Amino acid sequence: RNATADTIDLAVIGGDGIGPEVVAEGLKVLDAVCDAKVARTEYDLGARRWHATGETLPDSVLEELRGHDAILLGAIGDPSVPSGVLERQLLLRIRFELDHHVNLRPAKLFPGVKSPLDVNSVAPQGIDFVVVREGTEGPYTGNGGALRVGTPNELATEVSVNTRFGAERVVRDAFARAQARERKKLTLLHKHNVLSYAGHMWRRTVEEVGAEFPDVTHDYAHIDAAMIYLVQDPSRFDVIVTDNLFGDIVTDLAAAVTGGIGLAASGNINPDRSTPSMFEPVHGSAPDIAGQGKADPTATILSVAMLLEHLGRTAEARRIEHAVAADLASRGDQVRSTAQIGEAIAATLA
Amino acid sequence: RNATADTIDLAVIGGDGIGPEVVAEGLKVLDAVCDAKVARTEYDLGARRWHATGETLPDSVLEELRGHDAILLGAIGDPSVPSGVLERQLLLRIRFELDHHVNLRPAKLFPGVKSPLDVNSVAPQGIDFVVVREGTEGPYTGNGGALRVGTPNELATEVSVNTRFGAERVVRDAFARAQARERKKLTLLHKHNVLSYAGHMWRRTVEEVGAEFPDVTHDYAHIDAAMIYLVQDPSRFDVIVTDNLFGDIVTDLAAAVTGGIGLAASGNINPDRSTPSMFEPVHGSAPDIAGQGKADPTATILSVAMLLEHLGRTAEARRIEHAVAADLASRGDQVRSTAQIGEAIAATLA
Ligand SMILES: CC(C)[C@H](C(=O)O)[C@@H](O)C(=O)O
Ligand SMILES: CC(C)[C@H](C(=O)O)[C@@H](O)C(=O)O
Repeated sequence: RNATADTIDLAVIGGDGIGPEVVAEGLKVLDAVCDAKVARTEYDLGARRWHATGETLPDSVLEELRGHDAILLGAIGDPSVPSGVLERQLLLRIRFELDHHVNLRPAKLFPGVKSPLDVNSVAPQGIDFVVVREGTEGPYTGNGGALRVGTPNELATEVSVNTRFGAERVVRDAFARAQARERKKLTLLHKHNVLSYAGHMWRRTVEEVGAEFPDVTHDYAHIDAAMIYLVQDPSRFDVIVTDNLFGDIVTDLAAAVTGGIGLAASGNINPDRSTPSMFEPVHGSAPDIAGQGKADPTATILSVAMLLEHLGRTAEARRIEHAVAADLASRGDQVRSTAQIGEAIAATLA
Repeated sequence: RNATADTIDLAVIGGDGIGPEVVAEGLKVLDAVCDAKVARTEYDLGARRWHATGETLPDSVLEELRGHDAILLGAIGDPSVPSGVLERQLLLRIRFELDHHVNLRPAKLFPGVKSPLDVNSVAPQGIDFVVVREGTEGPYTGNGGALRVGTPNELATEVSVNTRFGAERVVRDAFARAQARERKKLTLLHKHNVLSYAGHMWRRTVEEVGAEFPDVTHDYAHIDAAMIYLVQDPSRFDVIVTDNLFGDIVTDLAAAVTGGIGLAASGNINPDRSTPSMFEPVHGSAPDIAGQGKADPTATILSVAMLLEHLGRTAEARRIEHAVAADLASRGDQVRSTAQIGEAIAATLA
């Protein structure tokens, strides 16, 4: 975050499954586009380390991570590790400890990319929106518990924790992003008719913060209705703001309708820059295809563009996006390996 | 539920917005198909009553509802009533008090119906699955609260409450439904890598109850991944079982990909029949088109078929489904009113 014009100090976490493969291509593209000297430190985190040492994210590693300008992450998660261990103790721990409250996930249907939607009928104006997913609250806090586990009387709770402080800062961030866009429209997704305590708080927050952005229009949709809009009329969305869990759900659907998670980039951002932000493809570790060179590195490459943009290197970010757009437009049905895609995009930037 | 061969004692709640219009058509079809004498009692519940009397669901009305064989509901909800009041005190109160734990929502793409998906590429084998949504637990229990409301220090929680008892009964119901279907496959949707307490309980419940159904295969998908499957490969689903909130979200998407909520039927079912079950279209009250004869009554008509099936009148249920299928197959682009659609379907059954 203190990246000067001539150095970027990057932490790299390849992680599990296809993570290291796609990160390798992201780094090739970064090298090809970036005028700065990129210093990289690789961190061995994920299933391998957990099996070898029992460690997920040692405190000392977390401290080291804090010292970098930004983090590039491949993917976390492996079926050989009990569900939740790596997610909670590694991935979510980084997001929470580094206060990545803005989980930014653009959803754009690039020309030439095939959507599972009948785009001519449902999205003739194209799809181009961004989701600001809250990243440090909601049902992701790990609050809750279980009683009498394994008995017929088992009880399990999950507590969604939401604060005005937490909602307000992402709502303000989302309004600012909407203001910088052409359509200047923000949509809150929630379920305030059922989750009334949190829902009404989010709604009031949008009303109140919205007053600071008179040129931005805002509306509201229940999360269930949003499912319908996303497949019947996705062009209606410009900037979506929502909580951590609804954001998780809606961004996978957004990725799917814009051509799949092979293309979906994301940033876990702390806009105040007191900690490094982390950039990662939305897809997971896909252990079934790991090590086979089959994964599409495009999502990671676009995440590298978001990383550069976050570091103020907007021109380089734009160059990557254009190179990706050109590559996507000419892909057709050809099957290329992870490295072939990465190298093709890097080549046009070199 | 004690419906004899020659009488059905039905409670009818038209409710808000388009509710009364679509219910009227559902009743026409019921009259046309049903050999039994149908006794109806109409209940005036919803926004009108709340404005007039402040009442949502008086205890005495709830007691009366208990005395019927089944309930047909149009829709509940109106923008003139504060969000959550009618939903929680009327609709959800009925579901909870009458122990409607199986919220059954079929998702079928009928021939001739246009899906927003590019069906030829993503669902060449068609779409035909059913969602068993838990109806009495999860984040719908109203647990949670708020502190310092309206201040910068506001805190709001929502508590998802889940019991083995509650999960097990719907999981068993879902397995039994899967066993009666051709593909005999059950998929649990949850998010056990983050919502670990509830997620692991659901998962264990599926493993254990699954052992009672050796001829049914079962798998699991995270709710976010399910979003992708539902638009990229919806044919993979046969029976989905999930919690109340995930079920709410996924059934609107399921409705959308199978032609829209104008066609999506549902049953709020208490399989032990100690209380009447309630049948309702998945769509809401749609106040923007209320009173204009524009609403599609098909979802309500298919809900009437589910009602008859629940009462053991399977042949009549099948006749409605065939009549609806025939009507859908011949619809093309013609625009018909609510009553025209209802009457056309009723006419083929008379
Ligand atoms: C792996 C999982 C914990 C994570 C999440 O739920 O946030 C993932 O689905 C994502 O969207 O980044
Ligand atoms: C109106 C609302 C409370 C309801 C729900 O969330 O269950 C509706 O969305 C539904 O799916 O029946």
